[in-house]
Amino acid sequence: MAVYTEVSDDDLAQFLERYDIGDLLSFKGIAEGVENTNYILHTTNGAFILTLYEKRVATADLPFFLGLMEHLAKHDVSCPLPVRDREGNNLNSLCGRTAALITFLEGFCIRRPKPPHCTEVGRNLARLHLAGDGFAMRRENALGPQGWRPLFEHFADEADVIAGGLQCEISDELDWLERHWPAELPKGIIHADLFPDNVFFIGGNLSGVIDFYFACNDFLSYDLAVCLNAWCFEEDFSFNVTKGRALLKAYEEVRPLQAEEREAMSTLARGAALRFLLTRCYDWLNTPPGAIVKPHDPKAYLRRLRFHQRAATIADYGC
Amino acid sequence: MAVYTEVSDDDLAQFLERYDIGDLLSFKGIAEGVENTNYILHTTNGAFILTLYEKRVATADLPFFLGLMEHLAKHDVSCPLPVRDREGNNLNSLCGRTAALITFLEGFCIRRPKPPHCTEVGRNLARLHLAGDGFAMRRENALGPQGWRPLFEHFADEADVIAGGLQCEISDELDWLERHWPAELPKGIIHADLFPDNVFFIGGNLSGVIDFYFACNDFLSYDLAVCLNAWCFEEDFSFNVTKGRALLKAYEEVRPLQAEEREAMSTLARGAALRFLLTRCYDWLNTPPGAIVKPHDPKAYLRRLRFHQRAATIADYGC
Repeated sequence: MAVYTEVSDDDLAQFLERYDIGDLLSFKGIAEGVENTNYILHTTNGAFILTLYEKRVATADLPFFLGLMEHLAKHDVSCPLPVRDREGNNLNSLCGRTAALITFLEGFCIRRPKPPHCTEVGRNLARLHLAGDGFAMRRENALGPQGWRPLFEHFADEADVIAGGLQCEISDELDWLERHWPAELPKGIIHADLFPDNVFFIGGNLSGVIDFYFACNDFLSYDLAVCLNAWCFEEDFSFNVTKGRALLKAYEEVRPLQAEEREAMSTLARGAALRFLLTRCYDWLNTPPGAIVKPHDPKAYLRRLRFHQRAATIADYGC
Repeated sequence: MAVYTEVSDDDLAQFLERYDIGDLLSFKGIAEGVENTNYILHTTNGAFILTLYEKRVATADLPFFLGLMEHLAKHDVSCPLPVRDREGNNLNSLCGRTAALITFLEGFCIRRPKPPHCTEVGRNLARLHLAGDGFAMRRENALGPQGWRPLFEHFADEADVIAGGLQCEISDELDWLERHWPAELPKGIIHADLFPDNVFFIGGNLSGVIDFYFACNDFLSYDLAVCLNAWCFEEDFSFNVTKGRALLKAYEEVRPLQAEEREAMSTLARGAALRFLLTRCYDWLNTPPGAIVKPHDPKAYLRRLRFHQRAATIADYGC
């Protein structure tokens, strides 16, 4: 939510000499993206986003993320297209940071999604899963089941600061998930962070998906479970089955779930809730007071986790 | 340099119903403007800036600032044009703030201006002064000579924290300026804050002037003295007479200075340097550590002030 690196007109002019994107008309730092610095550029050719990658994104993964966006954009998934310079590079250096230029995607986030938004998300998530099929690069899910326990161990001793009994509750859940996590389900490219912040709409229609910086190879149905968590709970933490049904039904119209995926849905949803609970706990305990980016409340995912623990079958999600 | 007020898609949709600016395509908070929250909007009609006025701008002055921008834009000064809603209002309410929608001006700031940029600034400042002539509203300069001593008294006791002897030096300068400040010079609408941050260029040509939130009625030549301070010093605080000459000459090609204005130039430049020294000292001493907006170093204006104290005539500025 901040411009961490200030880019001057001279720095930018030099950087843009590499690209064939028309003449620069304006550039402004935008308050978007928690971990990177982003500028919106207008040129005689259109609008672009310039991203300077700050500390938390591992630059070694950038070719995967940008290559994926290019692959998906070419396979009819609406997402920003990384612009290659005249030498064919989609990554360059600017102000001491690795930087990329991507096309600007019109559309805006919906703070309070309604069921038709969930329909759009389900349909487009399935399309993304199908389109990801031919992508040649691979990336393990650093925040998948193997990553949960080590992440928990970073803050387990302090967990009860967030909520009484939380250390024990997470520990029990980790034990349960390690015993019950599916061994085999259809795998492929997943977005892994498809929250309302990362989906743009125009006039009720999904106009694009952004922020592929958690994308990886994992169970496709886990991505759907992330969306059940991110799109279908109300502010009072009640699960809205109309939204759940809209999401799942639209997904299945494009990519029908296998019986094992349907059976595993509540387990996958527990795992997805735990994954966000863990990172939010970590950020909550490790964000200095007065930081520009305020951490999200972890308890929102504890509430979601408890819902999934009580869910018996996919019918509890409306399908 | 921050988004102080978060606007949701619902809030914005409701606000935009008042205006006839096409359908919303995107909106993003931008890291521009120290005191207000700004969003860039793309609609089917083009690009706009949405400004939410936060604490420091007195809302009572907003009709003056917006009226002035409208007046200037209609008299061929390139500046953002406030958009009026269907009922003719250029100010409305959004998320508990007074808010305005203005046209987006292409162009970008030059961090290290060269003499041709100073030529552009001089010419356009003079045009602005002429165009301001028919504007019916008035606003006193709250940061003019009458405002300097009260502002100084707010921090005089702490001034030496910034630089040894500063309290004494400012006090002497205030005494001198009160004795020597011109009683009568041509008056009119001045921008009063025409720093490189507030002037956009495209390809070496000035594309527009922004940020009229210090504009007021005062000596026109004082505005030129502000520009001598803001545009013609190098990073080592040496005065670049080539830039000074470019600025003054281009100004005079549009609006020739009167003899009294030329005679008063070094006094006006001292006053302008003191005005920014005072506000920067105040901000330096009153900005909490860790604030989002870092205060500018006041000593840069102490160095400028000392240059002007040694300047004898307008010839010392290159003219």
